[in-house]
Amino acid sequence: MFDRLETPSILVDMRKVRVNLKRMADDVLHSGCTLRPHVKTHKIPELARLAIAYGACGITVAKVSEAEVMADGGIRDIFIAYPLVGDFRIRRAGELSQRIRLILAVDSLAGAQAISAHAIRTGTVFEVRLEVDTGLKRTGISLEHAPGLAMSISMLPGLKLTGIFTFRGPILDGLPTADNEAAGRQEGRLLAGLAARLRADGLEILDVSGGSSPTGRHVAAVEGMTEVRPGTYIFNDFMQVIEKACDIEDCAASVLVTVVSTPESGYAVIDGGSKTFATDFPVNAPPYFFPGYAVSPDHPGLVLSRVNEEHGILTSASGNTGLAVGQRIRLIPTHICTTVNLHNDIWFIEDGMLRKVRVEARGMLV
Amino acid sequence: MFDRLETPSILVDMRKVRVNLKRMADDVLHSGCTLRPHVKTHKIPELARLAIAYGACGITVAKVSEAEVMADGGIRDIFIAYPLVGDFRIRRAGELSQRIRLILAVDSLAGAQAISAHAIRTGTVFEVRLEVDTGLKRTGISLEHAPGLAMSISMLPGLKLTGIFTFRGPILDGLPTADNEAAGRQEGRLLAGLAARLRADGLEILDVSGGSSPTGRHVAAVEGMTEVRPGTYIFNDFMQVIEKACDIEDCAASVLVTVVSTPESGYAVIDGGSKTFATDFPVNAPPYFFPGYAVSPDHPGLVLSRVNEEHGILTSASGNTGLAVGQRIRLIPTHICTTVNLHNDIWFIEDGMLRKVRVEARGMLV
Repeated sequence: MFDRLETPSILVDMRKVRVNLKRMADDVLHSGCTLRPHVKTHKIPELARLAIAYGACGITVAKVSEAEVMADGGIRDIFIAYPLVGDFRIRRAGELSQRIRLILAVDSLAGAQAISAHAIRTGTVFEVRLEVDTGLKRTGISLEHAPGLAMSISMLPGLKLTGIFTFRGPILDGLPTADNEAAGRQEGRLLAGLAARLRADGLEILDVSGGSSPTGRHVAAVEGMTEVRPGTYIFNDFMQVIEKACDIEDCAASVLVTVVSTPESGYAVIDGGSKTFATDFPVNAPPYFFPGYAVSPDHPGLVLSRVNEEHGILTSASGNTGLAVGQRIRLIPTHICTTVNLHNDIWFIEDGMLRKVRVEARGMLV
Repeated sequence: MFDRLETPSILVDMRKVRVNLKRMADDVLHSGCTLRPHVKTHKIPELARLAIAYGACGITVAKVSEAEVMADGGIRDIFIAYPLVGDFRIRRAGELSQRIRLILAVDSLAGAQAISAHAIRTGTVFEVRLEVDTGLKRTGISLEHAPGLAMSISMLPGLKLTGIFTFRGPILDGLPTADNEAAGRQEGRLLAGLAARLRADGLEILDVSGGSSPTGRHVAAVEGMTEVRPGTYIFNDFMQVIEKACDIEDCAASVLVTVVSTPESGYAVIDGGSKTFATDFPVNAPPYFFPGYAVSPDHPGLVLSRVNEEHGILTSASGNTGLAVGQRIRLIPTHICTTVNLHNDIWFIEDGMLRKVRVEARGMLV
């Protein structure tokens, strides 16, 4: 079936996609939480619609420009889970909020005041959630300062503070493998505890949102959580395998490549490097030990161990790759989200048919 | 001038681009070599044409799909410096070679035979160069086996073997900083020596091509070299600074970002992570010690030290970033080539004007 496909190409097994979507939805909905998957992994409206068909309440994005593409693709309930800063973004969010349910994120008073000012000018009311840091140390106000900031935001005109959200706990500090259940429970308990505190302060906190692909099920099981936002689970990748969130058979997306050179038996070069495969993780270094940028599901021990821009160096645990020039193989990327982000189109395989699909929100950086 | 620009956006100072183009062309042409720059860094036909206006004889690409975009953009002399493997590629190369001078690369007999078979079927003659490995250990036949392979290729119908090429010597083996001159001389001598050997065997080797941005000038100075193919020098980046190939003031491209969160004085979060900045190099690890994914030209000590997909964590050598939510800053990426590859459009600054330019060959992976 793939003989005539040009390489490198991303192949997506839609049967596995459906299994992944259903499994997460079943687990999360069973816990009484809503599921609002992050579309960062695929950036394709059709897959966002499919996730909703499998029970998601809406979607999560990181950028207002992604939200616009998804709204154009028929999605009616979008959370931009990222502090919305910059007048150019607030203006676009304001326009978008006229046609869909759009939830914005804030994590600072300055950010909230700028959104409020725009709301006043335009006679809009924005639904906002406060981002809280439960240990990842990137965006999000600290648990300590969250109550004060939430109270200040709740008093700003034009804003309706409806929820709080986070993304993961302090799980990356030197642990070789994560205990996803313990991490998810910790993340959930910290956030649900804060929600209870804010309600005691008189704030009406409706949405308490957390989670990720490895921890989402466990976050959802925590009393007081209302929503989880996993992303990678739709495709899965070798990072999820290493993080014990799935098995290699659950990886729905692979990259079909061609061997272009075999100068020595010890390595083979394929027609894709760092412009084809993601590189945004450390290889052979803590906290997780990823052996390379991709692995072969069909040739055990074969690893994409080095990349230049258009060169990928495959090595084998056996010392001999056994590959020949012109041979085609599939590789499971270590990180699928940023791999898809490098491709203009990807290929869906469904019912024995191949179909090319545009990665419509790729490159939407604003 | 940048106040109304959305972020993240790549800004290109066209005055610096012109200086960089002229300086390399002057040095290389002065040595009697031709300059055939690699367009991997910008992927924009307009910049390929500008390099030719500054003295380049043509361009280099890695992919046949890039060559098609460049040919559509008016470039008439293109070398695909990458083993052309796969019937789908050979077919496209065959069509393209009908309308421009197209030079192909081979590094294996199997690869050369497939091109030869297509040439026979279509009544074409392909100009090819043999890729030789002078130490980088990726594509390229070994110096030892090159004479035999060159002789075999020269006897294949439909192929005209006109040259040999390489990319860099064994310079990355544990050296903290490269001696670009020594590395360039070694690369040039190995390749020029091979060319002499092949001519002694009766082969007509016209083109002896090597070089990179750090080593290009020094490769060009070696007797017997005829062409060099640097790429990054048009923009330069912090990697080139670390590799002592340029100064920070020579970096023509920067990324304008907005600070979205300052949870602690010790770090600030910007609106771009690994989908905005390249990550295809080790940070704080040998052989070169890159401090992070980007550095600030305006705030000494400020480094983009950690990235998630849409989050960039800036830290400061002083311990305090001094940044505020909403503030805009420019950052020089550590690796500009794969950074540009993440952006659909970039902005040219020339004569005080801003102009949006499409990265036309971005995502051309075939």
